[in-house]
Amino acid sequence: MLYFVNDYSEGAHEKVLRHLIDTNMEQLSGYGTDHYCETAKEKIKKACGCEDAEVYLLTGGTQTNQIVIDTMLAPYEGVVAAHTGHVSTHEAGAIEFTGHKVLELPEKNGKICASDLKELAETFYGDDNHEHMVFPGMVYISHPTEYGTLYSKKELEELSSVCRKYKLPLFLDGARLIYGLVSKETDVTLQDLAELCDVFYIGGTKAGTLCGEAVVFTGNCMPKHFLTRVKQHGALLAKGRLLGVQFDALFTDDLYLEIGKNAIETAAVLKEGLKKKEYQFFIDSPTNQQFVVLENSRMEELKKDVQFGFWEKADDSHTVVRFATSWATRMEDVQKLLSLL
Amino acid sequence: MLYFVNDYSEGAHEKVLRHLIDTNMEQLSGYGTDHYCETAKEKIKKACGCEDAEVYLLTGGTQTNQIVIDTMLAPYEGVVAAHTGHVSTHEAGAIEFTGHKVLELPEKNGKICASDLKELAETFYGDDNHEHMVFPGMVYISHPTEYGTLYSKKELEELSSVCRKYKLPLFLDGARLIYGLVSKETDVTLQDLAELCDVFYIGGTKAGTLCGEAVVFTGNCMPKHFLTRVKQHGALLAKGRLLGVQFDALFTDDLYLEIGKNAIETAAVLKEGLKKKEYQFFIDSPTNQQFVVLENSRMEELKKDVQFGFWEKADDSHTVVRFATSWATRMEDVQKLLSLL
Amino acid sequence: MLYFVNDYSEGAHEKVLRHLIDTNMEQLSGYGTDHYCETAKEKIKKACGCEDAEVYLLTGGTQTNQIVIDTMLAPYEGVVAAHTGHVSTHEAGAIEFTGHKVLELPEKNGKICASDLKELAETFYGDDNHEHMVFPGMVYISHPTEYGTLYSKKELEELSSVCRKYKLPLFLDGARLIYGLVSKETDVTLQDLAELCDVFYIGGTKAGTLCGEAVVFTGNCMPKHFLTRVKQHGALLAKGRLLGVQFDALFTDDLYLEIGKNAIETAAVLKEGLKKKEYQFFIDSPTNQQFVVLENSRMEELKKDVQFGFWEKADDSHTVVRFATSWATRMEDVQKLLSLL
Amino acid sequence: MLYFVNDYSEGAHEKVLRHLIDTNMEQLSGYGTDHYCETAKEKIKKACGCEDAEVYLLTGGTQTNQIVIDTMLAPYEGVVAAHTGHVSTHEAGAIEFTGHKVLELPEKNGKICASDLKELAETFYGDDNHEHMVFPGMVYISHPTEYGTLYSKKELEELSSVCRKYKLPLFLDGARLIYGLVSKETDVTLQDLAELCDVFYIGGTKAGTLCGEAVVFTGNCMPKHFLTRVKQHGALLAKGRLLGVQFDALFTDDLYLEIGKNAIETAAVLKEGLKKKEYQFFIDSPTNQQFVVLENSRMEELKKDVQFGFWEKADDSHTVVRFATSWATRMEDVQKLLSLL
Repeated sequence: MLYFVNDYSEGAHEKVLRHLIDTNMEQLSGYGTDHYCETAKEKIKKACGCEDAEVYLLTGGTQTNQIVIDTMLAPYEGVVAAHTGHVSTHEAGAIEFTGHKVLELPEKNGKICASDLKELAETFYGDDNHEHMVFPGMVYISHPTEYGTLYSKKELEELSSVCRKYKLPLFLDGARLIYGLVSKETDVTLQDLAELCDVFYIGGTKAGTLCGEAVVFTGNCMPKHFLTRVKQHGALLAKGRLLGVQFDALFTDDLYLEIGKNAIETAAVLKEGLKKKEYQFFIDSPTNQQFVVLENSRMEELKKDVQFGFWEKADDSHTVVRFATSWATRMEDVQKLLSLL
Repeated sequence: MLYFVNDYSEGAHEKVLRHLIDTNMEQLSGYGTDHYCETAKEKIKKACGCEDAEVYLLTGGTQTNQIVIDTMLAPYEGVVAAHTGHVSTHEAGAIEFTGHKVLELPEKNGKICASDLKELAETFYGDDNHEHMVFPGMVYISHPTEYGTLYSKKELEELSSVCRKYKLPLFLDGARLIYGLVSKETDVTLQDLAELCDVFYIGGTKAGTLCGEAVVFTGNCMPKHFLTRVKQHGALLAKGRLLGVQFDALFTDDLYLEIGKNAIETAAVLKEGLKKKEYQFFIDSPTNQQFVVLENSRMEELKKDVQFGFWEKADDSHTVVRFATSWATRMEDVQKLLSLL
Repeated sequence: MLYFVNDYSEGAHEKVLRHLIDTNMEQLSGYGTDHYCETAKEKIKKACGCEDAEVYLLTGGTQTNQIVIDTMLAPYEGVVAAHTGHVSTHEAGAIEFTGHKVLELPEKNGKICASDLKELAETFYGDDNHEHMVFPGMVYISHPTEYGTLYSKKELEELSSVCRKYKLPLFLDGARLIYGLVSKETDVTLQDLAELCDVFYIGGTKAGTLCGEAVVFTGNCMPKHFLTRVKQHGALLAKGRLLGVQFDALFTDDLYLEIGKNAIETAAVLKEGLKKKEYQFFIDSPTNQQFVVLENSRMEELKKDVQFGFWEKADDSHTVVRFATSWATRMEDVQKLLSLL
Repeated sequence: MLYFVNDYSEGAHEKVLRHLIDTNMEQLSGYGTDHYCETAKEKIKKACGCEDAEVYLLTGGTQTNQIVIDTMLAPYEGVVAAHTGHVSTHEAGAIEFTGHKVLELPEKNGKICASDLKELAETFYGDDNHEHMVFPGMVYISHPTEYGTLYSKKELEELSSVCRKYKLPLFLDGARLIYGLVSKETDVTLQDLAELCDVFYIGGTKAGTLCGEAVVFTGNCMPKHFLTRVKQHGALLAKGRLLGVQFDALFTDDLYLEIGKNAIETAAVLKEGLKKKEYQFFIDSPTNQQFVVLENSRMEELKKDVQFGFWEKADDSHTVVRFATSWATRMEDVQKLLSLL
C-alpha cells in the first residue's frame, strides 16, 4: 500500500528522533523551562531574523489556533478568516468554544484579499449599530492554505497594511509553513513573515516532529501571563522538553529546510506526472498537497493500492482527492503512484 | 418629530400598564413562581392550542436566543441560521459567548429554505471527517424575519420536515411574532407554530410590554433544570411578576391581536402611500417594517422631521431605510409622514 | 397572611410607578440612550459625590455580578469573595459560567477582613508556582452582607488599602445598599463607597423598583465597549427607559432614603420586640433582615399566618429563619407579627 | 546536582523510547485511529479486568481533568473535590474555564471522606433553594493524592457507594496511579478502580512516558462524540500514535509495574533514612513523594547539591519540602541524598 493520505503518517524525522534519544536521560526542569526549549527558541528567533520576538512551543495545531486567537482577542472581538479557513470549518468549533466568533470572508484559492478585509472593516465601523455586533479583532490566514496555495509577498503586504490600519493583529497558521517556504513558486521568507505578521507559527507535526508547533510573537505582542493561560486551556506539558528538543533539532543545520525540500521535490514530480497524464487539477498548488479530480470508479480502483485523501464531491461521477507528500516521501513511491494512475 | 424608527419607542400598551398598576401592591412570591406567571402561561398555552407545552418568561430577545440555543444544544453542536439572522449578526456574539457556532445558510428575503438545510445536513453527514467539525444541532429562524418577511405555512412544513428527519429542533424567534400572525398575507397561525416548531417565542418588548419574551417549548423539550440555567446565565428576575403580569394582560381578551392589528393597518396605509409615490422598495414586506430606498439628499432632509432606521447603503447615492409601525402608531402620523415624502 | 419572606414581594414604590405611568407614551430611543437614563445617571453621580464616575443600569443582581466581574477580570483571574458570598453560593455558578473561579475567603458575620485578604495575596505571590494557579483579580463584598451585617468605614478602608496595594479592584454588591446606608449603626456613606470602591451597585429590585441595579464605576474603570459586552451577555434591554425612568424616580427628592428608612424603622421595632420576647438571634443585624432561631414546632405553627424565609438548620430541633422588612412594610404588620411570636 | 524535584525530570523509560524508535517509520493513520492505540487500549482494558470499558488517550494531566470533567458534567453541575485537590488549586482555573464550579470539601491527608460527601449532597437537596445553586455533578479524587497519600479500598467503597446513591460519577485522577498501585501499603488494585470508579486515568507523563494519560471509562459512560469534544478543547493529536505506542509499551510485559516498583523502593529507602535521622515528616506518605519539614538555613544549604520541591511554609523558620522518586531514580542517588541530610 502506498501512502499519500497526509503529511503526518510517519513518526519523527530521524534527526529529531536522534536528538530525543540522545537527551532522554538528562534531568530537566518542567513546563518548558529547560535549556532545550531555550535554545530552540533562540534558533527560531535567529531563523526569523527577529531577535526581539517571543517564541512559545505548543503541542498541536488546533490547540495553537485556539490559544493564540483566544488570548489575543478581547472578549468582544472575533477573528476574521476565510470561510474555508481551518478555524472556520475543521476544528470542531474550538474557537467558538472559547467565546469568539469566526467572521468569515470569501476566499479565492483558499486565500482572502486585502480589499475584502478593508471592506469588512469599513462596513463594520461605518455601521451606526456596530456596538451591537462582534468587533473584528484579528485576522487569521493559513500559509500554505487548506488548498496548498500560497500568498505572495505583495498579497501579504497588502493584508498587513489593512490590518495595521485597523489595528487587527495578523495571525498566520503555519502548520505546513515549511512546505510554503521552500516552494519554488514563493517569494515569501521567514523574515518576511516576522515583519508582516504579528504572530505566526511554524508547524512541527506536519514537518517531521512527533508533535509541536512553535508560535512566534513579533513586536512584543505575546499576551500577558501566557503560561497561565496555556495551562488554563489544558495545554501546558509537564515535560516541555518534548517540544524543546524536537524544535532544537529542527532548527539545527537547517533541518527544517531539508525536510521541506524533499516534500516539494516529490510533489513536483507527482504534479508533472499528473499533468502529463492529463489529469484535471482542482486547484494549482505549488506545495506538497496536490488536488486532482478523479472519476469515481477510477478512484475506487486506486484505493486498493494507495491511501489518499477524500476532499469533496466534484459532481455525481467525480471526486476531488488529495495526494500529500512529506519529508518522508520516497521518490520511488511517487513513481509507483504515477504508474498506477 | 415623527417616530418611525422602531416598534419599541413607547412604554407599555395602556392595558398592560393598567394591569401592572392594579397588581402593584399584591405580595407575590419571587422568581416567576407567582400566580400571574402561572395564569399567563396557561393563557399562552391555550392560545397556542397546545396544552402540554411548557412556557417560560424571559426578559429580552437576545437573552432568549442565547439561553434557548445554549440550553438546547449539546456542547459539540452549533445552530443553523440565515447569514442575515439576528443571532448571526446583531447580537454581539451572544451565541458564541456560550460556546456555540452559528452555522450560516444563504438567505432569500431573509429566509432559509428546506433544500439548503437538507443539503447542509447531507453534506455534513456525508463527510467522513464530520467528527472534526461542528455538528448542526438546531435550526433558528425568525418570523417575521429581519426584513419583515414571512414564512408560508408550506415553507415551515418543509423546514420542519427536514428538521425532524435530522433530529434538529426548529426554533422560531418571534420577537415580532404578533406582527406576522395578524398580517393579511400570512397563512400561519399560532397553532401551526406550536405544531411545526419545537420551541418558539412570542415577543412582548416589541409588542406592547415594557420587556418580556414568552418562550414556548412544545412536545416536552424544555431543558432540564431550566430555572437553574436561566439563573446561571444571569437572567432570572427576582420580581418575575413583572413578566407574568404583562403577559397575563397581553393574552387577556386577545389584546395581542389588537396590538398587532394597529401596526399592520398603519403599515399597510404607509406601504400603499409609498407605492403611489413610486418609491422603490428594498423588499416586499407584509408586516410592520417597510424598507425603502431613498436618495441620500432626500434622506438627509427627511431626518429633520422624522426618525427612521438606517438599514444599509444601497449605492453611493442611495440608502435603504426602514420605517416601523407598532401598536402605538397613530394613523395621523402616517399621513403626516406620507405628506413629507 | 403576613409577608416577611423577603424585600421584593411587592411591585414598585408608588412614586416609581407614577413616573413610569407619566412617561409611558413618550417616544424614546432604545438601549439606554434615552434622556431618563441620562438624568438618572447624573443624579446618581451627584448622590455619590463623584462627578467623574460612570454609571450603567442593568436589570438584576446576579446579572450585574456576572457582568461586572467577568468584564473587569482578565481571563486568568478569579474573584475573591467570602465563602458565604452570594456569588459563591447562590447564583447557580453564574461567575464560573463566564470562566472565572471564585476564590473563597473565610467570613465572620458574612464579612471578609483585610488581614485575610492580605494573607491570600501574600501567599499567592510568595508561591513560586503561582503562575499555575488562578490569579486573584478583584475583591467582591456585599453590603449589607447576606446576613444583614455591615462593614464599618474602617473595615472598608482597610480592605480598600490592601486592594490598592495588590491592584485588586474592590467591588461592592449593593443589592440592598439602601438598607445599609440608612441603618442607624453605620458610618458609611454613599460618598465613602465612591471613594473606597472601584465599582459598586445600588440595588433597585430590593429597594422599590420593578427591576434594575445601577452600577457605579469610579475612577475611570468602566470596561471598554461595555455596552457590547452587556449585549454579549444577553443583558441589554431594548427599552432601556424601564431602568432609566425608575432610577430617575428613585434619586429624585431622596426617594431612596425614604424607602430605606421605612425598612429600617420597621425592622428596628421588630428586632426590639423579638429581644423583649427573648428570642435568640442567629446574628446581630442592624439592617432590614433579622435572623432568629426558632424551635421547629413553633416555626411550623407560625407558617400558618406568616411567610418568612428558611435560612438553615440550627440543630435537630431548631431552625434559623429570616424576617425581612422593606419600603412596603407596614408598622401594623410588624405589630401583628410580634403578637403572633 | 541530585534531582528529587519531581517524577518527570527524565524523558521516557528506555522500553517506551525503544518502541517509539522501532515503530517510527511505520505509516499510520491519524487522530488515534492507528493499531497501536487500539492495542494499547486492549491491554489497558485487560489490565483493568474490564473488557467493556472504553479507553481514550490524552496528552497531559490538566487537559485530562478538564476534558473529563467538562464532558461528563451537565452545564449546571459542578465537580466536588478536596480543597487541596489539583483541580481546585493548581490548574490555573482550567475547570472554571469550561464553565464549571469546583465544589470544595474539607480534606484529611489530602483525602475526602464519604460522610462529608454525603452531608454535602444531603444539605444540597435538603435546601429549598437548591435550584439557585450549582448542582453537585461528579466527584473528583486523586490517588495518590497531592500529598502522596492513598485511599484504602474501604474508603473508596464508601465514597463509591455515596456517589452511586446520588448518581454522582466518581472520577479518579491517576496521574501518579502506578505509584499507588505498587505501594506496599495499599489494598487497592486496578481492577478495584475499574469497579468502584466511573472514570479514572492512568498517568503516563509521571510514569515513564514523554506524555500521555490513559482515560478509562467504565460501564459505558464515555460522553457522546468524545473525539469531537476532545478536538473542540484543542486536545486532539494528529499523530495519535505518539500516545498509542507509548501506552502499548507501558502495558507490555507489565512494564508499568516495573516502573512503579523502582520509585517505591527508592522512596522507601529514603523514608527509612529520613526517619533514622529523625527528620519530621509533614505527612506519612506510602508512595513516591516524601514531605519533610526542614529548618530554613538547612534547606538553603541543601539546595546547593540537590533539587527538591518547595511545598509550603511551615512556620517562620521551617519549610515543607518534597522529595520525589521515579522510575528513573537510582538507589545510589538516594544514598548520596541521605549522606547530605
